[in-house]
Amino acid sequence: MSWLKKIEEPFWQNLLEKIAGEEETTKEYLIEGLRTGRIVIPFNPIHSPSKPAAIGKGLSVKVNANLGTSEKKVDITEELEKIKVSVESKADTIMDLSTGGDLDSIREEIIKNSPLPVGTVPVYQAFAEVKLKRGNYLDLKEDEIFRAIEKQAQDGVDFMTIHAGINWRSLKALEKQGRVTGIVSRGGALLAAWMTYHQKENPLYEHFDQVLELADRYDFVISLGDALRPGCIADATDRAQIEELIVLGELVREARRKNVQVMVEGPGHVPLNQIEENVRLQKSLTEEAPFYVLGPLVTDIGAGYDHIVSAIGGALAAFYGADFLCYVTPSEHLRLPDVEDVREGIIASRIAAHAADIARGNKKALSWDLKMAEARARLSWEEQIKLSINPGNASQLRHSITSDLDEVCSMCGEYCAMKIFRDHLNFPKVKGCS
Amino acid sequence: MSWLKKIEEPFWQNLLEKIAGEEETTKEYLIEGLRTGRIVIPFNPIHSPSKPAAIGKGLSVKVNANLGTSEKKVDITEELEKIKVSVESKADTIMDLSTGGDLDSIREEIIKNSPLPVGTVPVYQAFAEVKLKRGNYLDLKEDEIFRAIEKQAQDGVDFMTIHAGINWRSLKALEKQGRVTGIVSRGGALLAAWMTYHQKENPLYEHFDQVLELADRYDFVISLGDALRPGCIADATDRAQIEELIVLGELVREARRKNVQVMVEGPGHVPLNQIEENVRLQKSLTEEAPFYVLGPLVTDIGAGYDHIVSAIGGALAAFYGADFLCYVTPSEHLRLPDVEDVREGIIASRIAAHAADIARGNKKALSWDLKMAEARARLSWEEQIKLSINPGNASQLRHSITSDLDEVCSMCGEYCAMKIFRDHLNFPKVKGCS
Repeated sequence: MSWLKKIEEPFWQNLLEKIAGEEETTKEYLIEGLRTGRIVIPFNPIHSPSKPAAIGKGLSVKVNANLGTSEKKVDITEELEKIKVSVESKADTIMDLSTGGDLDSIREEIIKNSPLPVGTVPVYQAFAEVKLKRGNYLDLKEDEIFRAIEKQAQDGVDFMTIHAGINWRSLKALEKQGRVTGIVSRGGALLAAWMTYHQKENPLYEHFDQVLELADRYDFVISLGDALRPGCIADATDRAQIEELIVLGELVREARRKNVQVMVEGPGHVPLNQIEENVRLQKSLTEEAPFYVLGPLVTDIGAGYDHIVSAIGGALAAFYGADFLCYVTPSEHLRLPDVEDVREGIIASRIAAHAADIARGNKKALSWDLKMAEARARLSWEEQIKLSINPGNASQLRHSITSDLDEVCSMCGEYCAMKIFRDHLNFPKVKGCS
Repeated sequence: MSWLKKIEEPFWQNLLEKIAGEEETTKEYLIEGLRTGRIVIPFNPIHSPSKPAAIGKGLSVKVNANLGTSEKKVDITEELEKIKVSVESKADTIMDLSTGGDLDSIREEIIKNSPLPVGTVPVYQAFAEVKLKRGNYLDLKEDEIFRAIEKQAQDGVDFMTIHAGINWRSLKALEKQGRVTGIVSRGGALLAAWMTYHQKENPLYEHFDQVLELADRYDFVISLGDALRPGCIADATDRAQIEELIVLGELVREARRKNVQVMVEGPGHVPLNQIEENVRLQKSLTEEAPFYVLGPLVTDIGAGYDHIVSAIGGALAAFYGADFLCYVTPSEHLRLPDVEDVREGIIASRIAAHAADIARGNKKALSWDLKMAEARARLSWEEQIKLSINPGNASQLRHSITSDLDEVCSMCGEYCAMKIFRDHLNFPKVKGCS
């Protein structure tokens, strides 16, 4: 049964009511978005995440946190702790990008413990298992990719990155052009290496109908991966990237024809002055598919602070219409993130999403800021801390010098502008006629 | 002698050569910018900072770090440590905003120890000393403001914030309109309270000619303060703010008539979607005076992370033409920043400035990123760390899991896209015909 039929059932209607309430929109708006493909809801009934999220046009900007093991570090306890921190810090989804350890049991644990929708990149597991079995990951057989997708769907994965846009056409564009950093997508590099080694088309592209069948059967959202995203400022918005985006647009249309939910992933490393065109181009070439951006990183030299680099790019991308931000942590380009990296990454990305929500006129976001501004004008510290994006951190900073009895903070002391204004200037406290 | 005459002397010609070399521009370009007022160089000969900076049109974006004591915390050793960290982290200027302790001796120590140009807000001292002498800071006499300015100029201050744009005209616009957070500029609130208490015009506005005379005599740059900058998203880009900006534009013209160097300070709390208009409006109303922005903060709820909030706004403002970013630290709105806050604040602001430099096509900035991208493609970790914005931090993160012998990092392990691409795909390593 098609997904659009399913949502007519009472279970889905309740779910849509709940999501519409949180978004301060209507169920009808969500249904129209789902019908036209401008909105997706990653929700695999096998997982049935208790905190589902809708992603797309007219909704608040969402944030994803990546977690998972690597060959170099396998610690499931830490990964579960990352889930806890993701929920606390208000990520909307998580992705399990594990490539080290027992991938099936790690994923099962993550799905079992995540109230948030869970995404994966099934080719990671497909290649990693071939390496264990046959020594060389390039010995992968085509059907092993689809078996990995089906296995993960059966485990309850809510959305999957599918790198179907890297094919001979886009890979040739890359070869003809050249690049400073080549391919920086793990899945993309693996598939390009496989294609070159076997001299065969990318199975995810050639047999995209099989992916669609699986997505339809198991109700996961396809997130079309951008294998050819630029990995540095010098490679941004080049012919290889846009050639792949054109292919992704074609695949979006195929998915919609089969009533399969689909979103599109985007760059990458992009200078500030190219972010607007990247978002507008994605929206135009993919017929307004929800846009999931990986950054964008507005400079290459921020290693150690790439959560900030990415917050700059993400805020701007979301302002121009991106719907879903993949966080970047301070450890990006340097190591597997630890639990505190996950927290810092999510908070930076949430700030970016919220700044874009404000700029897009989201009423809930504006009202949060207004409450904070009013608390500031009243010098109400308890409220200010409660309204901060991470109250624990705000409280710790505030109380490191001053006590609860202090009316002001240690920055300006009695020369607090808010206090001077309140004590000496009897001006209206709101704007205009309100 | 006018400043434009002085720069014909050999000492200044050498200084201009040096600055032009660092900016990868010509001495002639700088002189033309100084002549038309599109560029300023804060350089009080009494201080003679060893690392001077030019600020304005066509130059790289500069970063200022605020430091200084407050009533609640006076520790000169810590302030001197902040200067060291400011130089290390590559701030271009510092401002001493002290309001606690022996202000004269603190300022003298700071100027003596700073190779960077030093800015101040002289009204802080004027009001603080009146409070000590006469119990109520509002008992300030007009000439005490000008004496504070002259004293600080004689100490070697290179640029001073002068809140001359708050006058009856702009204050009435504020009163008529109302605001959620009133006045959030310390100097602005003090002057507005003084004006209301005495029912007199702001002396800095009424006797702006005296400020100009002092600036001409001592060669400090006037930084026209934005007393009525918005303190929250709800107050952004309102009539009070723009009324003051119009006044500031008029004062810019007066300063230029007297060949006094002048720049203009700007908001504040501004949503992402209003940043472009704020920068364009400032440039238009002030005849392209160098624009020094305090943030802008793109949301009110980021306390504890306002360095990130401000990096988002600052990057965008600088991309649209702002010339000079005042950093914001993680402690903003909560406490006086400590040494580590200063470091984090400068790095976030430097990232914003650099991202804007890239977007503005600055060749030096682009070349830095290209070197990093090439180091990444070569998996050269030593170079990557050296090219990072804070090599110490990058090295610590990298080596927390992996050793120097590792070819890859702990994020992807052997599934490193760079490594797969290099090992399996023999594609050109540069773009196009190069």
